[in-house]
Amino acid sequence: MASIKRYNTRLVNYSVNVGRMDIKAYMQTLGQQARSAGRELGKTDTGKKNQALLAIAEVIADSTAHLTAENQKDLLAGQQNGLDAASLDRLTLSPKTLQAMIDGLRQVAALPDPVGEITGLSFRPSGIQVGQMRMPLGVIGIIYESRPNVTVDAAALCLKSGNACILRGGSEAFHSNQAIAACILQGLTAAGLPAHAVQIVATADRAAVGELITLSEYVDVIVPRGGKSLIERISQEATIPVIKHLDGICHVYIDDKADIAKAVAIADNAKTHRYGVCNAMETLLVAEGIAAQVLPLLADIYRTKGVELRGCAKTCSLIPGCIRATEADWRSEYLAPILSIRIVEGIDDAIDHINRYGSAHTEAIVTEDYTLARRFLREVDSSSVMVNASTRFADGFEYGLGAEIGISTAKLHARGPVGLLGLTSLKYIVLGDGHIRH
Amino acid sequence: MASIKRYNTRLVNYSVNVGRMDIKAYMQTLGQQARSAGRELGKTDTGKKNQALLAIAEVIADSTAHLTAENQKDLLAGQQNGLDAASLDRLTLSPKTLQAMIDGLRQVAALPDPVGEITGLSFRPSGIQVGQMRMPLGVIGIIYESRPNVTVDAAALCLKSGNACILRGGSEAFHSNQAIAACILQGLTAAGLPAHAVQIVATADRAAVGELITLSEYVDVIVPRGGKSLIERISQEATIPVIKHLDGICHVYIDDKADIAKAVAIADNAKTHRYGVCNAMETLLVAEGIAAQVLPLLADIYRTKGVELRGCAKTCSLIPGCIRATEADWRSEYLAPILSIRIVEGIDDAIDHINRYGSAHTEAIVTEDYTLARRFLREVDSSSVMVNASTRFADGFEYGLGAEIGISTAKLHARGPVGLLGLTSLKYIVLGDGHIRH
Repeated sequence: MASIKRYNTRLVNYSVNVGRMDIKAYMQTLGQQARSAGRELGKTDTGKKNQALLAIAEVIADSTAHLTAENQKDLLAGQQNGLDAASLDRLTLSPKTLQAMIDGLRQVAALPDPVGEITGLSFRPSGIQVGQMRMPLGVIGIIYESRPNVTVDAAALCLKSGNACILRGGSEAFHSNQAIAACILQGLTAAGLPAHAVQIVATADRAAVGELITLSEYVDVIVPRGGKSLIERISQEATIPVIKHLDGICHVYIDDKADIAKAVAIADNAKTHRYGVCNAMETLLVAEGIAAQVLPLLADIYRTKGVELRGCAKTCSLIPGCIRATEADWRSEYLAPILSIRIVEGIDDAIDHINRYGSAHTEAIVTEDYTLARRFLREVDSSSVMVNASTRFADGFEYGLGAEIGISTAKLHARGPVGLLGLTSLKYIVLGDGHIRH
Repeated sequence: MASIKRYNTRLVNYSVNVGRMDIKAYMQTLGQQARSAGRELGKTDTGKKNQALLAIAEVIADSTAHLTAENQKDLLAGQQNGLDAASLDRLTLSPKTLQAMIDGLRQVAALPDPVGEITGLSFRPSGIQVGQMRMPLGVIGIIYESRPNVTVDAAALCLKSGNACILRGGSEAFHSNQAIAACILQGLTAAGLPAHAVQIVATADRAAVGELITLSEYVDVIVPRGGKSLIERISQEATIPVIKHLDGICHVYIDDKADIAKAVAIADNAKTHRYGVCNAMETLLVAEGIAAQVLPLLADIYRTKGVELRGCAKTCSLIPGCIRATEADWRSEYLAPILSIRIVEGIDDAIDHINRYGSAHTEAIVTEDYTLARRFLREVDSSSVMVNASTRFADGFEYGLGAEIGISTAKLHARGPVGLLGLTSLKYIVLGDGHIRH
């Protein structure tokens, strides 16, 4: 604990200095330090990176009292500033959250290191040998909202993938994040890694975000985590590529040939397992041949769980009390116990609806028909496409990535849950023996 | 020939219509048509795509007289407008260029189809099976300068990778490109593919470029091919992701432990094989322990071939007549018979120079030392990194990609020569049997 207090003191001084500094100059400094640390980290041994991750886990485990105390300051300020219950909940570092942070670090340490992996090395007719080597992206800027546990999760993924990172958490989690930063710094130092491999912006000034997303010389990619408005703003203003997911308007399509029990279980789970998450179903599409059988069963479940239903005319005729959906409903990510339902003619109609209104996040078909399952997998162009499984599975842990830094709905680079591989890219390597081109 | 003339007539009418239309509305129409054609193309069989590629090759082979005549119009106009000899050369559809276009189409037809490939499908503890499927990006906008053969090369790569494309060639190649467009349209139609799978902008109005790079609803990625100023402008103004290479300031580093014969052959080839290409060496770095042996040999070769040398002070002391390089030289992509030379202490100094002045295109080390070769491969973060081979090998054909749509120096998505794989990305697929998340 003594050493942590020492680091905290330094951070506090640093933070005070920032207050007097120009934000632009401060962010430039962070960028330069990150670029230099990133170059070091890119060539660091796997063992040393794992050592740092485990050291950070240990420091956090030894510092729970201190972290909780710092978190209390944020919670108190949050209450005084009128934060709502959900935000206060996200802000809280409970014993369970702290343990999850520690477990997460150990899990990332246990994952295979993607950096430096060489694939496809094969000889060409000219005699050169060509392959690809996986490399860190360099420096990653992460901008997130209230959850302070993101600080540790994001730092762990960046560290393991050989990327330096600059983290900008929500101002309401300022004390928590600074205390976590001190733990990370201590772990990095213990393992002999550069102190600037993970930097947490030590000012609550919002101008820091604007500077971070335009630091094109020093930052290679921006990962925003948070609400749609944050991500839209960042995407518009950033001069650096952004790995983003804007929204998750996820669909389940229950086909004529669906198994009724599976259809009910999946449509229930996809909507009601958790409401406020991006992989929750927002629109249910049902083939007209099966609607009369499956919709009344589902309507009972949704009614019991308090889910408001908004349907097309045909749906409303099958479900008493269902509200008529408007055009806006098909484009809505409710993140709430509300569901829109549309009866469609069949798979073509369903795919048309998804193409038109979906956000290319996650779509599932429920069917026992081989050919339709195969068509849905090929023709639906979302970051995750599923057959007979709940959209709630679209998640880094569930996919075996170990952890994720976000879910990308963009088409280039990484789509779906972004784990270690999404934080790297491939360069070509060529091995010759004095070869020249003729 | 009769049918080609028919298509040409239609195109000419179309082009005339464009003149009267609003450019914005015209580009919107192309975008909508491309999106719809792209959805069709994404699910088209490999066999049918190959059939279209071979049909286009056949139509071009049958239309050389017509294509040459149309090309003559452009060449005549170019001469009248004072185009320089190099531009006129690039603009010319010679029998050799035409044959290369035909061969290119047949080669792309022979390449494996990347679309729909499923990889890594494995079971997770929850019971779901997770893998990834390779998908087309959707719609690709390509903006290029005078070479009309790019029209065919780009169309072939997009077609095979399941992407619709909108091509905007240089206004100086307008007639050539429209004649090629007619051949492509005929081939598409013969194979039963959507006519809008490949669209060539039928107006020379420059406003079309500004519209194309902001058609975010319909275009997924922009590939600019051309000079640095074109690419910089497009990158700045585009609201769509751009796959670009800005410049190729490529380095060869001759290490102390280099084999002299290999070093001389590689440094000669990398500079003098072709001057105006992005993978030509622009700066030669030489370890001080070997400079006195290798530089005089190279200086003789360069002198014979008329290459102007600009060196650091130490280099100038070894090479009589060498001009002193300025800071600007280290940042210059000459694309000309000019070479900057710097003597460095060793590999660390060389990598520092590359990090500072390079453009992350292609870098090569010449060494017989195992450890230094391994370090250079890992620590130099360029799109291609080579050991004992000429930078001139950084090329889609040489790497076995079949063809390339450009060379990317960006870090996200595709780095280096971009072939069929770079025009696709991976989505996740999940196979379940009624699985829900607990």
